[in-house]
Amino acid sequence: MTTSSKPDIHLGAFPLDVGHHIAAWRHPDVPADGGSSLDFYRRLAQTAERGKLDMIFFGDQMAAQYPDDETVGRTSRVTRLEPTALLSALAAATTRLGLVGTVSTSYFEPFHVARKFATLDRLSEGRSGWNVVTSFNDREAQNFNQGEVRTHAERYERAHEFVDVVQALWDSWEDDAFLRDKASGLFFDPAKLHVLDHRGKYFSARGPLNIPRSPQGQPVIVQAGSSEDGRGFAAERAEVVFTAQPSLAAARGFYADVKARAERAGRDPGHVKIMPGAMTFIGASEAEAREKYEQLQSLIDPEVGWIVLRRHLGIDVSGLDPDAPFPDLPLTPDFPSRQKLLIEMALSEKLTVRQFYERVVGARGHLLAIGTAAQVADQFEAWVDGGGADGFNLMLPWLPAALDDVVDLLVPELRRRGRFRHEYQGSTLRSHLGLPVPSNRHVQSSAQPVAQA
Amino acid sequence: MTTSSKPDIHLGAFPLDVGHHIAAWRHPDVPADGGSSLDFYRRLAQTAERGKLDMIFFGDQMAAQYPDDETVGRTSRVTRLEPTALLSALAAATTRLGLVGTVSTSYFEPFHVARKFATLDRLSEGRSGWNVVTSFNDREAQNFNQGEVRTHAERYERAHEFVDVVQALWDSWEDDAFLRDKASGLFFDPAKLHVLDHRGKYFSARGPLNIPRSPQGQPVIVQAGSSEDGRGFAAERAEVVFTAQPSLAAARGFYADVKARAERAGRDPGHVKIMPGAMTFIGASEAEAREKYEQLQSLIDPEVGWIVLRRHLGIDVSGLDPDAPFPDLPLTPDFPSRQKLLIEMALSEKLTVRQFYERVVGARGHLLAIGTAAQVADQFEAWVDGGGADGFNLMLPWLPAALDDVVDLLVPELRRRGRFRHEYQGSTLRSHLGLPVPSNRHVQSSAQPVAQA
Repeated sequence: MTTSSKPDIHLGAFPLDVGHHIAAWRHPDVPADGGSSLDFYRRLAQTAERGKLDMIFFGDQMAAQYPDDETVGRTSRVTRLEPTALLSALAAATTRLGLVGTVSTSYFEPFHVARKFATLDRLSEGRSGWNVVTSFNDREAQNFNQGEVRTHAERYERAHEFVDVVQALWDSWEDDAFLRDKASGLFFDPAKLHVLDHRGKYFSARGPLNIPRSPQGQPVIVQAGSSEDGRGFAAERAEVVFTAQPSLAAARGFYADVKARAERAGRDPGHVKIMPGAMTFIGASEAEAREKYEQLQSLIDPEVGWIVLRRHLGIDVSGLDPDAPFPDLPLTPDFPSRQKLLIEMALSEKLTVRQFYERVVGARGHLLAIGTAAQVADQFEAWVDGGGADGFNLMLPWLPAALDDVVDLLVPELRRRGRFRHEYQGSTLRSHLGLPVPSNRHVQSSAQPVAQA
Repeated sequence: MTTSSKPDIHLGAFPLDVGHHIAAWRHPDVPADGGSSLDFYRRLAQTAERGKLDMIFFGDQMAAQYPDDETVGRTSRVTRLEPTALLSALAAATTRLGLVGTVSTSYFEPFHVARKFATLDRLSEGRSGWNVVTSFNDREAQNFNQGEVRTHAERYERAHEFVDVVQALWDSWEDDAFLRDKASGLFFDPAKLHVLDHRGKYFSARGPLNIPRSPQGQPVIVQAGSSEDGRGFAAERAEVVFTAQPSLAAARGFYADVKARAERAGRDPGHVKIMPGAMTFIGASEAEAREKYEQLQSLIDPEVGWIVLRRHLGIDVSGLDPDAPFPDLPLTPDFPSRQKLLIEMALSEKLTVRQFYERVVGARGHLLAIGTAAQVADQFEAWVDGGGADGFNLMLPWLPAALDDVVDLLVPELRRRGRFRHEYQGSTLRSHLGLPVPSNRHVQSSAQPVAQA
C-alpha cells in the first residue's frame, strides 16, 4: 500500500481560553487576558487557516465556573465569550477555515439556534458547524429560570426533537427559490418556500426560517457524547464526533461501535468522522517536547489540581497515598461515561494516584502526544490506520505557541507523509471533511455529491 | 452664536436588507442578493467608518415576513441575518464604528442577551449597543412555542425586569477584578466577583455573567417605542432613542416630552440622545436628488405598495379615490402610536390618498430629506437647533449608493459647518455619543466621566 492511498488526517484546532492545560495562563509566553480578546482569537484562526486545518472549534459553558472553596480565584476558566458571536467575528477574519461552535439544546428554542448557525453559515459562505450538546450543569440551569437540570433520557429526547426542528428550518427555502427578477418584480418563487408548522412534544415552531441555505446546504452537525444515549445520537445524526479516548485500544472500540451503529441506522459510516481529542506537545527533539510538558505541569497549583480531579472524577481521591496504585473502584452502571473512561484508564494502565492526577489534570483523559513532529505523526497515523480515528480535535495546551507548533512542525511532517492537504480543495467545511451536501428535503434528487464548492 | 458652539450632529447608518425603500432591490445599481452577504455589509460598515459616523444599526425580525396574498414573492424583506452575529462579524472588519442591534426581550432569557452584547462589547472593545424591543408580531410568537403575543402592558413590565437583570449581570465583575498574577496563581479577586441571585416575577438568574466589562463599562441602551409605555421606558432607561417623526413640529413635541420625563426620572436629559429616522436622497443638484427619489418610487410594485400601506396603517384605503383628500379617521385611544402618527401626518399636511401612499410606502412616516447636501444639512440643522433631535438614524433607501452619498456629500458639508467630527475622539460608542461610562454598581464612586477611551 502506498502512502498516497491512505486517507488524509482531519485536524481541528480547539482553543479553550488561553489553552487547554489548566495552568496555561501562568505560562510566561501566554497573554493571560487573551481569552476575551478578538485579536488573540483572530491570530489563532489565521494560524489555523495558514496550516489548512479543517476547522477551529469553540466549546461553551453558560455559567462562570469557579469553585466554591479555598481555590476560588485560582482559575482562568471563569470567562467565556459566546461562541457563535466569536465565530461570526472570525468568519470576517478568514476565508476557508471551518467554524464550529457549541450551543446547548437545553436553554434555547430551535428557531434561535437554526438562525444563529444559518447566519454564521451565510457570513462564512458555507463554513459553519454546530456542536449539539445537552446541558447537565446546575450552575447553567440556575441562569435560565430552572432550578435543576432534566434527566439524561429527557435531555436526549428533547435534543432529538430540537435537531429535527433546526434541520427542517434550514430547508425552509429551496436553493433556487430566490429569483430576484428586477424586471418582473418577483423576488422569490412562493412554491419554493416551505412552512414547517411543527407541533411536537417539546417545541412548536411555524417557520419558515428567514435565512437562505448556504453553499454547503446545511451546517455540519457535530456531537460529543460518549454515553449510550450519546452514541445513539451520534450514529443517527452526527457528521463529526468529538470524543475523549485515552488509548488506541479504547478509541478502536468506540470507533467500531459508532460506525456500526451508523450503518445500522442506514447511514454511510464514511459520513461520520470520528475525531478524538488530542493534547500535543511538539518539540524539535523529544526532550524539548517533554520539557514543554513539564514546564506546564510544574505550573499547576496543587490545590487547583485536586479540585479539577474531583470535578472530572466525581469522587475525591486527594487523601490517598500519591504513590499507591489507583484504587479499584466499583463501576456501577449509572456511572457517567466520562468518569468511567477515566477510571478504566487508571486501572488498565496501572497508574499510581500521582500518575493519574498528572494525566487527568493535564490532558483530562484525552490522547496525550508528546514528542517530535515525527513521533506525534507516527502516533496519529497509528490511530487513523489502526481504526481508532478519522482525525483529531487538537486540545491546544497553551496558546498561541502550541498551535504554532502544530502548523509549523506537525502539518509539514504529515504533508511529507502524504497525509495532510497542501491546499484547501474547496471553500466549505463539508468540502474539507469530505461530507456530502444534503439536498433540500423538499426537492426530489438522487444525487448527493461530495461538497466541492 | 458661532457655529462652533453648536453641538455636533450624531449620525447612525441604518441599513435594512439592500435598502429601506421597499423597491430598493429592483434598483439597477443594487446587488439584490446583498442582504445575506458579509461582503455587502462589510463594505457598508467600512464606508460608515470612513465617514466617522457614530454607529451602524441593524433591526431584527424573528420571522420571515411575506404577505399571504396575491403579492407573495414580491418582497425582498423575507430574509434577515441575525443581527448580533452580523455585528460580531463587523466588529472584526472595523475599529471605531459603534455597533448597535435589536434583540427582543420576548423570546430570550436575560442571561442570553447579557452574554450576546457583552461578547460583542469585548470583541469590539467597547462599541456595542442594544436596541431593546418587545415583540408584538404573531408570526414571531409562532416560531417560539407561543400562539399569541402578550399584552402591551405585560410586555413592558417584562421588558423592565429583563433589562434590570441584563444590566446587573453586566456588572458581575468589577473592572479591576482580574489580577492574572502568574507568580501567585491568583487569576481574579473573589471579592470583586458579584453573584446576582435574581428571583423576580418573570425571570430567575443566578449569575455571575462569564464575561468581563468592556472599556465602555456597559453596552449602550437604545430604544424605539413611541407609545406611552415606550416613552416611559425611554425616559427611565434609554441612552439613545430612535423615533419616527414626520415633521419638526412633531419631533419637537416628542423631544421635549422624553427629555422632561428623563429629568423627572432623575436623569441628566443630555444623556438621552434622540435620533429620529431620516430617509435621505442627496444629489449634486436638487433636481438630481429628486430624480433619485422618483426613480425608486417608480419601481414600487403597486400591489406591494397597497399591502405595505395596509400593514403600516392597520386599515385598507386602497379602494379610495387616489386624488381625494386623505379621510379624517377617528383616532380612538387604543390606536397604536405609530399608526396614529401616520394619520396625523396625513391630516396635518392635507395629503391626498396618493400623496399619503407615496410618502408612507417610500419613507414610512419618517423625515424624508431630498435635496443637495446643503439642503439636507439645512434641514438637519433646523431639527437639531430647533429642539427636535440630537442626530439622525439614517434609513438609507438603496444601498450602497445612499450611504456613499451621505459620506461623500453630506458629511463634508456638515463638517464645513462645524457640525460633524473630522476624526473619532475616542474608540467607544459611548465616546462618540458623549455618554458617561456607568460605574459598576458594586463600586463606590462619585465620578461618572464622559467616555474618552
